[in-house]
Amino acid sequence: MLTTAITARERMVLAKHASRTISLLTDQQKCGALMSVADEITAATDDIVAANAEDLAHGRDNGLSEALQDRLRLDGHRIAGLARAVREVARLPDPVGRVLDEQVMPNGVALTKVSVPFGVVGSIYEARPNVTVDIAALALRSGNAVVLRGGSAAERTNAALIAAMRRALTQANVDPDGIQTVDDFGRDGARELMQARGLIDVLIPRGSAALIETVVTESLVPVIETGAGIVHIVLDASAPLEWARDIVVNAKVQRPSVCNSVETVLVVREAAERLVAPVAGALHAHGVTVHGDEAVALLADHVVPATEADWSTEYLSLDVSMKVVADLDEALAHIRQYSTGHTESIITASDTNAERFLAEVDSAVVMVNASTRFTDGGEFGFGAEVGISTQKLHARGPMGLPELTSTKWLARGTGQVRA
Amino acid sequence: MLTTAITARERMVLAKHASRTISLLTDQQKCGALMSVADEITAATDDIVAANAEDLAHGRDNGLSEALQDRLRLDGHRIAGLARAVREVARLPDPVGRVLDEQVMPNGVALTKVSVPFGVVGSIYEARPNVTVDIAALALRSGNAVVLRGGSAAERTNAALIAAMRRALTQANVDPDGIQTVDDFGRDGARELMQARGLIDVLIPRGSAALIETVVTESLVPVIETGAGIVHIVLDASAPLEWARDIVVNAKVQRPSVCNSVETVLVVREAAERLVAPVAGALHAHGVTVHGDEAVALLADHVVPATEADWSTEYLSLDVSMKVVADLDEALAHIRQYSTGHTESIITASDTNAERFLAEVDSAVVMVNASTRFTDGGEFGFGAEVGISTQKLHARGPMGLPELTSTKWLARGTGQVRA
Repeated sequence: MLTTAITARERMVLAKHASRTISLLTDQQKCGALMSVADEITAATDDIVAANAEDLAHGRDNGLSEALQDRLRLDGHRIAGLARAVREVARLPDPVGRVLDEQVMPNGVALTKVSVPFGVVGSIYEARPNVTVDIAALALRSGNAVVLRGGSAAERTNAALIAAMRRALTQANVDPDGIQTVDDFGRDGARELMQARGLIDVLIPRGSAALIETVVTESLVPVIETGAGIVHIVLDASAPLEWARDIVVNAKVQRPSVCNSVETVLVVREAAERLVAPVAGALHAHGVTVHGDEAVALLADHVVPATEADWSTEYLSLDVSMKVVADLDEALAHIRQYSTGHTESIITASDTNAERFLAEVDSAVVMVNASTRFTDGGEFGFGAEVGISTQKLHARGPMGLPELTSTKWLARGTGQVRA
Repeated sequence: MLTTAITARERMVLAKHASRTISLLTDQQKCGALMSVADEITAATDDIVAANAEDLAHGRDNGLSEALQDRLRLDGHRIAGLARAVREVARLPDPVGRVLDEQVMPNGVALTKVSVPFGVVGSIYEARPNVTVDIAALALRSGNAVVLRGGSAAERTNAALIAAMRRALTQANVDPDGIQTVDDFGRDGARELMQARGLIDVLIPRGSAALIETVVTESLVPVIETGAGIVHIVLDASAPLEWARDIVVNAKVQRPSVCNSVETVLVVREAAERLVAPVAGALHAHGVTVHGDEAVALLADHVVPATEADWSTEYLSLDVSMKVVADLDEALAHIRQYSTGHTESIITASDTNAERFLAEVDSAVVMVNASTRFTDGGEFGFGAEVGISTQKLHARGPMGLPELTSTKWLARGTGQVRA
């Protein structure tokens, strides 16, 4: 590990320097480095678990919740899982060097647009040490150096993981400065990362809505906004009961803590009497608290009154808001007002309404008759997920390895000048 | 025109609202609206020229330079050119609705990734009224609303152009609020535009390096950075004299005021005695002032001594800096230090050095044996140019209409839930 005599900015300069040689590594060299990372993490299991135990003890002393402690905890089994995930990233196709466009200008200059690494990827995230390994592996696979800021709760765990990964790079003859942390600079490290335009090429925040908002607002480095999901399902007049019930339950219950789980169900009035009671009942049977408007409360049992705040709340828990809307127009207007542009789905038997929903909803993923839980890099066949972009620039929706690359035009001439 | 009782932010809300219907226009409707814009600009020639005369008089009174006055000036001929350019944009293929990816998930959910409009495009630029029409036409062609901030020197001209374009939209049954200006709010208008995250989807600054720097630094809206070009040409040991001379002269002299013109020529020492005198001599014969280092000054006449500042100066004039470097390594290091990542070219007879240059130079366009003046949307066959991106996110190099679109995943299922 580096001594603390070095500044956060100097670490980033080292990462930038390392990115030059890392961007030129062959597919085979990158895969070799990733295999080395997986081996070295496995070999360092005891060190990592010991560091993690210190973080956990420190967390308990400082009142870290049980849920956050669980997210933070690494044991031999979980570390083996991290190493396996790194090997899986190595098996994905190289996203660098793809020919994206080719043409010959009338004067004979040959143009080729190819995918190239960004250079240095920065990431700011919260107490999930798996993200440390995940982002580093994805960055390396796509020819990028990486600078990580993982949150103080996991500082010792992250330091052990990063030390292991840097040893692995050295063993694979790759510049170890390609993996850097600014964890040990606390909040200043995050601040320097956000201001390092020219050193960091793209910054990816992962974590709570508040964290992402801070990064988007304060960063001078271009940001890819990820994650926040106030996700809607619309039950249209013609929605088949079975699909409506099964999809809403799946979208809420299968994993409530993630961004693609549903938060608000909008029921078109014509279908309310037919659908609200059985759908709300099925949710209740699965332990979900339904926060309903007055119309919902009249039609179903166990409904907690919804307040205005409910429509803009990302519960990430076994809670869902439910509202009866006059028609599809009102459903679309509600989504425009409250959606974070992540995923929305309509349950309908009407092709007309389905196509209208697909055309008019302005979200990263718009679905018909499917669970919103499918918005996921793995489900989309990407093999790995960098995050789910809710912005419109560069990447939108689940991001795979290709989204960690930029492009470059190569022009090959034989003395041509412009007339 | 709108009354000034409305705030800048309210104008943006109107643009956002209009973007919903504009995003759903058919190809034919968008082309019809553009033809209407071209006709209405032509019909309003007298009004526009009168408004422009006021701006010019105001500019003269305030000491606006002759060069800026010329950029600002619109006469019947130039207005006809603007209308013609709008008609040409209408003839370009619709960038919206392209299918970019398609797959069926193992469970039968059909995924389609399509290109969609951004929504609302913002642009901040300086005293060039042609940009007002240009950006509005490109935004409309790609299904976007637009909010413009064009600089106080052209305020009356821009108001006349925007009034004509809004009339044209009304006549074509398109919501005229899809074209908005915040010019009349002065600097506050620009500030509000940069802070309008959620209303403006992407902000494109066009103009001086200082303007672009301000927007990149202050904007909360995602920015596409354009334009600044400290462009290098490397004359390699094996560079053929004729190509070296003709390409350097073309890259500097053909249009010195634009971003793709060369600013620095790096000559590898082995070729210095053979190339410096004839290349510098040809530049001098074309009226170019060569700012050379000591080695250059020893080999050529009429050389002005270069200072450290020259290597980071975008002259945009008949000036060029020239330096003798030890070898290709030193040339690459110089480019890494001073380039803005726009365009660099190497003149060489060595395939090895050509491929090394293409791989190692981290710029939007990297060339071998061609003039840097080819970095241009028109030359690349895009039919129109939104600007030249020097950032790595979303778009890099010349941007055409497709770069004014985002993407959306459509998922069509039949009741699938996640296991």
